[in-house]
Amino acid sequence: MTAMKETVATLAQELRVALGEEPADLYITNLKIIDVFTETIYSGNMVIKNGRIAAINPSWEVKADHVFDAEGRYAVPGFMDAHIHIEPTLLTPQALASVIVPWGTTVLFVDAMEIANVAGIKGLEALISHSDELPYRIYLEIPSRVPTAPGLETTGGVLGVEEVKELLKSNQAASLGELDPSKILGVREEYLAKVISAREQGKVANGHAIGLNWDQLNVYAAAGLSDDHESVTYEELVERLRLGIKALIREGSTERNVEALVRGAVEHHLPTENLLFCTDDKHVTDIAVEGHISYNIQKSIDLGLDPIKAIKMATINTSKHFRLDHLFGAITPGRYADFVLLDNLKTIKPVYVFKEGQLVAQEGKLTTEVKPEKFPEFLMETVHLSFNFKPADFAVKARGKSAKVNVINLYPDQIINNKTEEWLNIDSEQVQVDTEHDILKLAVVERYGKNGQVGVGYVRGFKLKSGALASSVSHDHHNIVIVGTNDQDMYLAAQEIARHQGGFAAVQDGKILGVLPLPIGGLMSPLPAEKVMEQLTSLNQVAKSMGCELPAPFMTLSFISLPTVPELGLTDHGLIDVLKHCQIKTVIETGS
Amino acid sequence: MTAMKETVATLAQELRVALGEEPADLYITNLKIIDVFTETIYSGNMVIKNGRIAAINPSWEVKADHVFDAEGRYAVPGFMDAHIHIEPTLLTPQALASVIVPWGTTVLFVDAMEIANVAGIKGLEALISHSDELPYRIYLEIPSRVPTAPGLETTGGVLGVEEVKELLKSNQAASLGELDPSKILGVREEYLAKVISAREQGKVANGHAIGLNWDQLNVYAAAGLSDDHESVTYEELVERLRLGIKALIREGSTERNVEALVRGAVEHHLPTENLLFCTDDKHVTDIAVEGHISYNIQKSIDLGLDPIKAIKMATINTSKHFRLDHLFGAITPGRYADFVLLDNLKTIKPVYVFKEGQLVAQEGKLTTEVKPEKFPEFLMETVHLSFNFKPADFAVKARGKSAKVNVINLYPDQIINNKTEEWLNIDSEQVQVDTEHDILKLAVVERYGKNGQVGVGYVRGFKLKSGALASSVSHDHHNIVIVGTNDQDMYLAAQEIARHQGGFAAVQDGKILGVLPLPIGGLMSPLPAEKVMEQLTSLNQVAKSMGCELPAPFMTLSFISLPTVPELGLTDHGLIDVLKHCQIKTVIETGS
Repeated sequence: MTAMKETVATLAQELRVALGEEPADLYITNLKIIDVFTETIYSGNMVIKNGRIAAINPSWEVKADHVFDAEGRYAVPGFMDAHIHIEPTLLTPQALASVIVPWGTTVLFVDAMEIANVAGIKGLEALISHSDELPYRIYLEIPSRVPTAPGLETTGGVLGVEEVKELLKSNQAASLGELDPSKILGVREEYLAKVISAREQGKVANGHAIGLNWDQLNVYAAAGLSDDHESVTYEELVERLRLGIKALIREGSTERNVEALVRGAVEHHLPTENLLFCTDDKHVTDIAVEGHISYNIQKSIDLGLDPIKAIKMATINTSKHFRLDHLFGAITPGRYADFVLLDNLKTIKPVYVFKEGQLVAQEGKLTTEVKPEKFPEFLMETVHLSFNFKPADFAVKARGKSAKVNVINLYPDQIINNKTEEWLNIDSEQVQVDTEHDILKLAVVERYGKNGQVGVGYVRGFKLKSGALASSVSHDHHNIVIVGTNDQDMYLAAQEIARHQGGFAAVQDGKILGVLPLPIGGLMSPLPAEKVMEQLTSLNQVAKSMGCELPAPFMTLSFISLPTVPELGLTDHGLIDVLKHCQIKTVIETGS
Repeated sequence: MTAMKETVATLAQELRVALGEEPADLYITNLKIIDVFTETIYSGNMVIKNGRIAAINPSWEVKADHVFDAEGRYAVPGFMDAHIHIEPTLLTPQALASVIVPWGTTVLFVDAMEIANVAGIKGLEALISHSDELPYRIYLEIPSRVPTAPGLETTGGVLGVEEVKELLKSNQAASLGELDPSKILGVREEYLAKVISAREQGKVANGHAIGLNWDQLNVYAAAGLSDDHESVTYEELVERLRLGIKALIREGSTERNVEALVRGAVEHHLPTENLLFCTDDKHVTDIAVEGHISYNIQKSIDLGLDPIKAIKMATINTSKHFRLDHLFGAITPGRYADFVLLDNLKTIKPVYVFKEGQLVAQEGKLTTEVKPEKFPEFLMETVHLSFNFKPADFAVKARGKSAKVNVINLYPDQIINNKTEEWLNIDSEQVQVDTEHDILKLAVVERYGKNGQVGVGYVRGFKLKSGALASSVSHDHHNIVIVGTNDQDMYLAAQEIARHQGGFAAVQDGKILGVLPLPIGGLMSPLPAEKVMEQLTSLNQVAKSMGCELPAPFMTLSFISLPTVPELGLTDHGLIDVLKHCQIKTVIETGS
């Protein structure tokens, strides 16, 4: 499965096969080949050597070590996800293979900003260190904002201009990862330096233009941000294209944009060459049921888009955007033999998936063994709580009888929140929670052994009646975030996570009710996909038994503290006013 | 006119203009903007700072140092020639500006293999050393075969694998220049190393797939050659696209392929995103009359191609192919303000041409002064004949009364030739010419001061009755090539060229009848375009007066000795059998 490094010797060998002078590794016969360049389909046979296509339909008699009869199936290039975060799947790249590859995905463009926030360059490198042994390819969108909120949060890793420049040099670096537009609209020079560094190395800079108006998009384009995956309406899509910004049409678990955008494109006969597909964030359970990028294609075809154009969006359009189209994205000589065999172009359900000329999946199952990765020790030990950490760190001290506090209020199914001010009782000079009105404590505990800071605020929406839930996944700093009804259980939950070096935990009355260990950077499990899904389902049940009605309480918990999503965030520094980009106090005033 | 280097400071300045916080350099109002992404036209205004577009149609009130009213004209991106050789125009890049820029050309992709054969890396660097002061951009296709026929010719410069690798690193290097397919079909490893070197640096490798069949095209594509400009029929075009090879549709002086190819594309509704335009070789006189890339567009529109699609072929398709689309090829923020204003989309005759936000041409004339380049001394002194060089070097010695010799026979209007065997008289142990049957001497005199070799053969087709014609332009080695009726005049012609350090010369009976000095590398004139054209016209008249009926005798002379075009070539080593790639004797046998 190891990716061949192109050398003069291997290339010469491929040419000799292409000339018919030497036998091929594999000869695939009886194909209907999708030609993404002329947008036609033709009957063909494929000659493969060293994992690359050496010839198609040669006139001479082919000799090959292996022959595979495709029985008239359609051959399409392997699918690509132009923008995905891996760590939120809770799976390692190895475990993820069994979920995505059977759906025909052969390339992921990964913004691994989570692991970078935890462990910097070394973390990124460790994540992909054996990716050439995977049955799919990983290219990195080098994280552009680690930390996301400098000065307002403690992270394990920091990627400054020099680190980003260095990372971009790698052959596996496809681009500069999605830049928060506020950095551009605020003309923050260190981020401009990162964009320039990518351009100088011939790589693109990704953006995410969430909610930007035309004037703001002008600035975004002027800065050299070349794509966006946040279009929700067709009008937004056209505005972006018009300004030279490619559009990644996203179909994730919550953000589902294919319907509106592709419908508009079909209705308006929009040229599709600057459209790509991505998932951004999609739950493994959703992928298992619906498909991965195959689902974006399927839905587009169902909406009336020409199947070849839909396939192009998932293949050659994407590899062209990242300037990797000489390697993959089409079924032609010189490119890797990464392709999918389909029974027809109406149902995008791969029968066979090949990567570099090797069968990697068949009828929904991997056909190749993917060895679990052994990650280096530093990445397995990223949770370092202070020796002085104690339940009293969660105390919110105030004098008087009651205190007016800032409260983070959840919106259902969204990562934004709104801020309210509420009165809470004070007892023994400590502000209390109010389970009756669902005002619980939210805390963030610094977990990198740097300063032991604990930020404490209040949150409404979890509806716990007792106990605490905790997570070492908390965007983007990934300290330990805990929601709870009492300091003791919150403390115990944090300690339980520390004991496992990361994970999700549920604690009630001093007892551990459940835990999902995520020891890899405190973000990912070493277990296979189905095991992790089982653990998560059972942990969600536990949270429900504690009174929490959220469909995915730990995902909600992981996003609620974000210091960059309005209105409030919470970090180890304390409560953050997102719009003002500054720290504010939890307790506003006290009453007697 | 100097190209801005992108820095954090300049980019920040552009963003502040895009935000409306600082005044722009230029504000262009009242445009109809061609949007190459949605393939639509919309009304707009353009805000320019530092030569780049900062914003389009901002909602705020624009403040700018200058305002230009486009009076409702169409704004299209500046045109690009995806493959051109500059030196055969006989003009410097500076002199060429007045010919091409008024036709809307703002970018040339230049394979400068001629100057590289004369002076290697230093020659290439000198050619483009002040190109950032030009009113158009030059990107280099780094010559992949210098010399073209290693071991069979002496050249001034050599570009081995290391030199090519080094040159490819430059920001001004767009690609590896067109590889002769024989090098690929012969699996010559040094050339594969050059291709890999380009790919490793994220650059494409150009090819020229002249006359290749499907099997050969497979090998060509497998080697990673990404484009071709030799399609003559629509069927050839489709074969290339199908194998992932982009097609440059050429309209030069002799090779005129737009009609057949674009007609086919229109008839078959071929997607055009992988089609580009080039001229390859086009005489300056033809450009002056017809246009440059503007003519490819014009002809395509006349053939029924959608004007926006035709414009895309000359703009964004080309910059995407060379992975420079973040810099130019569309009218969007962040890209250079290189554009052309047209009265309508039926007649591609630019009214105004802008490069980096500066008006560079208007109504067919440059509006900017282009200073003639002062090239370094080494490039002005490239003709070094041996001290021992003498008329007797042209003698073809043989004993007996007659000799059977190999003769190169010209085909009209083609660079290929055919080989015949002819009997010539011997006098004083020297084989004679036969002006009655138009069998003249052809000689190549090594001119780099390396070995003083003189290769002598025979040629039919020039029809000189007396005298000699000589040229220091002789593809691809560019030694002095001479056709003549007698050794004395041939010698004198070579000396006249040496006296001018390069050029074309006509000599008769010991008298210089005319000369066109080409002292820059022995290839180019320092004079302006119109002067050079005058000199050439007058010299062609002289040749005519000497009996030569060829329309462009010096161009024919410059190609006739090519050791890579069948059937015969002639170099300083001697006569070359092109198909066998070896030297052969001029005299086959003698008769008594």
